[in-house]
Amino acid sequence: MRYIDEQAIERITLGATLLGTGGGGDPYIGKMMALQAVRRYGPVALVAADELSRDELVVPISMIGAPTVLWEKIPSGREMVKILELMEAHLGKRAAAVMPIEIGGVNSLIPIAVAAEKSLPVVDADAMGRAFPEAQMVSFYLDGLVPNPVTMADEKGNTVLFHPVDAVWSERLARSLTVQMGASAAMSDYALTAGQVLTSGILGTLSLAEEVGRLILEARRENRSPVQDLLDTLHGFRLFTGKISDVTRRLEGGFTKGEAILEALTGKTGESLSLYFQNEYLLAASGDRILASTPDLIVALDADVGTPITSDRLKYGMRVDILAFPAPPKWRTPKGIEVAGPRYFGYDVDYVPVEHRVAAAAQ
Amino acid sequence: MRYIDEQAIERITLGATLLGTGGGGDPYIGKMMALQAVRRYGPVALVAADELSRDELVVPISMIGAPTVLWEKIPSGREMVKILELMEAHLGKRAAAVMPIEIGGVNSLIPIAVAAEKSLPVVDADAMGRAFPEAQMVSFYLDGLVPNPVTMADEKGNTVLFHPVDAVWSERLARSLTVQMGASAAMSDYALTAGQVLTSGILGTLSLAEEVGRLILEARRENRSPVQDLLDTLHGFRLFTGKISDVTRRLEGGFTKGEAILEALTGKTGESLSLYFQNEYLLAASGDRILASTPDLIVALDADVGTPITSDRLKYGMRVDILAFPAPPKWRTPKGIEVAGPRYFGYDVDYVPVEHRVAAAAQ
Repeated sequence: MRYIDEQAIERITLGATLLGTGGGGDPYIGKMMALQAVRRYGPVALVAADELSRDELVVPISMIGAPTVLWEKIPSGREMVKILELMEAHLGKRAAAVMPIEIGGVNSLIPIAVAAEKSLPVVDADAMGRAFPEAQMVSFYLDGLVPNPVTMADEKGNTVLFHPVDAVWSERLARSLTVQMGASAAMSDYALTAGQVLTSGILGTLSLAEEVGRLILEARRENRSPVQDLLDTLHGFRLFTGKISDVTRRLEGGFTKGEAILEALTGKTGESLSLYFQNEYLLAASGDRILASTPDLIVALDADVGTPITSDRLKYGMRVDILAFPAPPKWRTPKGIEVAGPRYFGYDVDYVPVEHRVAAAAQ
Repeated sequence: MRYIDEQAIERITLGATLLGTGGGGDPYIGKMMALQAVRRYGPVALVAADELSRDELVVPISMIGAPTVLWEKIPSGREMVKILELMEAHLGKRAAAVMPIEIGGVNSLIPIAVAAEKSLPVVDADAMGRAFPEAQMVSFYLDGLVPNPVTMADEKGNTVLFHPVDAVWSERLARSLTVQMGASAAMSDYALTAGQVLTSGILGTLSLAEEVGRLILEARRENRSPVQDLLDTLHGFRLFTGKISDVTRRLEGGFTKGEAILEALTGKTGESLSLYFQNEYLLAASGDRILASTPDLIVALDADVGTPITSDRLKYGMRVDILAFPAPPKWRTPKGIEVAGPRYFGYDVDYVPVEHRVAAAAQ
């Protein structure tokens, strides 16, 4: 066990932006909420899942909805605490800890704010190991767990508790409630025992986010690129370094879908990379050759200052490094690929692990 | 206290069709469910609200959604019982009785089916005294009561319990969940004490529906029109008798909106009536002169056999009597008119009680 303080929140924010793989929502609002809570209530204990008793209750805390709305409709924080209290009241059991359901983006920070206010530890784990856009894209669903129940609350005071038949129904019902609630809401699903988190969660990801943030900050202080450190730590690959020559975006089914074209910086004229995103970066290709795809993590870094760039900030002329990292093993199973592989998102390509794609390309 | 048997269900069905004022959903499916339950579990006790102890729990049972969908997706009945059980579990109290939230249409019958299965009485009251299309159009809302909580269930096994800040939010959240659940779902809101039902309900309406049905059946047996008996019992007015010369319909915001034009049967050529509906009949006008409007009840009866005709069955050439009946007093208050008067439905006219309109027209 150790404590998350203000400096740790800064590092986690930067790491969560990278692990958000272009989406997950700008963590800035989450950072502000977590900082404010820690300043008011003191640092938050970060515990490993195996530091809890196996039957203790762990409750994930998250926001659902359009991340951009958070800027116009800043959560009061009250709704985040409310979803925890509803869960506890329904289960007749106090939570021993909270956890993030998603480590990428804003949802990595929000549980820290709730943990501070409720004097609870936060578990060093999540259920994605990155960011994904839909509620069923969680390792708990891959393991056949049913969200039972789901709690939701909005800043107006509406609260909802529901028992969906599975996580796909959880996504469907929660998404439509979120639209009514003004495009964002607080949501807790998959209240679990610590033993279930240990088996079915993706472990150590808050620490991983913090380490990623630390590497980026350290490189920045030393005025060098963090790329090699990140590749070493996350066992990843640099796919491309180039300048953005075109970005197209369209709103489709609640996603910002689009494509960025990068041209190589070096002399190799004609070499280019296409980066496809639906909030998250989902596919990187050079001509007909796929370089990486979801569920593996694809990340864009500002080539000058090493800061991760979300897909909504991509613009013409930016110099970026495109990196790819292997997804956690649960995502590389047939079920994981069915739930969050390229075909689910409408790309007509098979999933091939990024390390195989890179090895094949090198031949 | 008396019992609802199979014959009473037949009468209630006919009366509920009339009180549905053209909408409320064809009660046939509800009749089948109620008949089946009564055949299996025996007749259902019908009690007045003041026959219960004031603090006993009364739970309304209803379907929400597009009535036509019930034909394609017949409720299993299980979801109707489930919403009652969810309510009881949440409140930690057993229901002493169920009740209809709406007396017009299918929702007058469904509580009878649940009452039979659960061996509970049904309260002789509802919260509309007719049919209305939205969940906040209930006398409980007019009296400032908050649905706390609302329970919902679908035939797939999804269940929801929510605490809306008011009945308008109840409508908004329940409607969007209903769309996801496949356009119809079971819903219980406003679990109340018998004392609250006594104060804020519209009393005696199941008996009224049955009496209306009895009058129609009696007239049919005697091969005469039920119109005069209905006018006497419901203190109403015959607005027009004519032949339908035109019907236009359009789907708009989940409603079937439209207008029927009737031409007088008698020699008075040129005399005509326009009947505006949004599922329910909401406005009757002759030229510029408004004859009746919501919240007063407007009803179309087949002029030949005395059967009430729902707005989806109106067609060219039908001979119909158009009747109007005063709404229950709670709907004639400023709040009642704001919630369900003509302006709420988009008609740019003031509400004037039907008896005043008829008196003015007679001068």
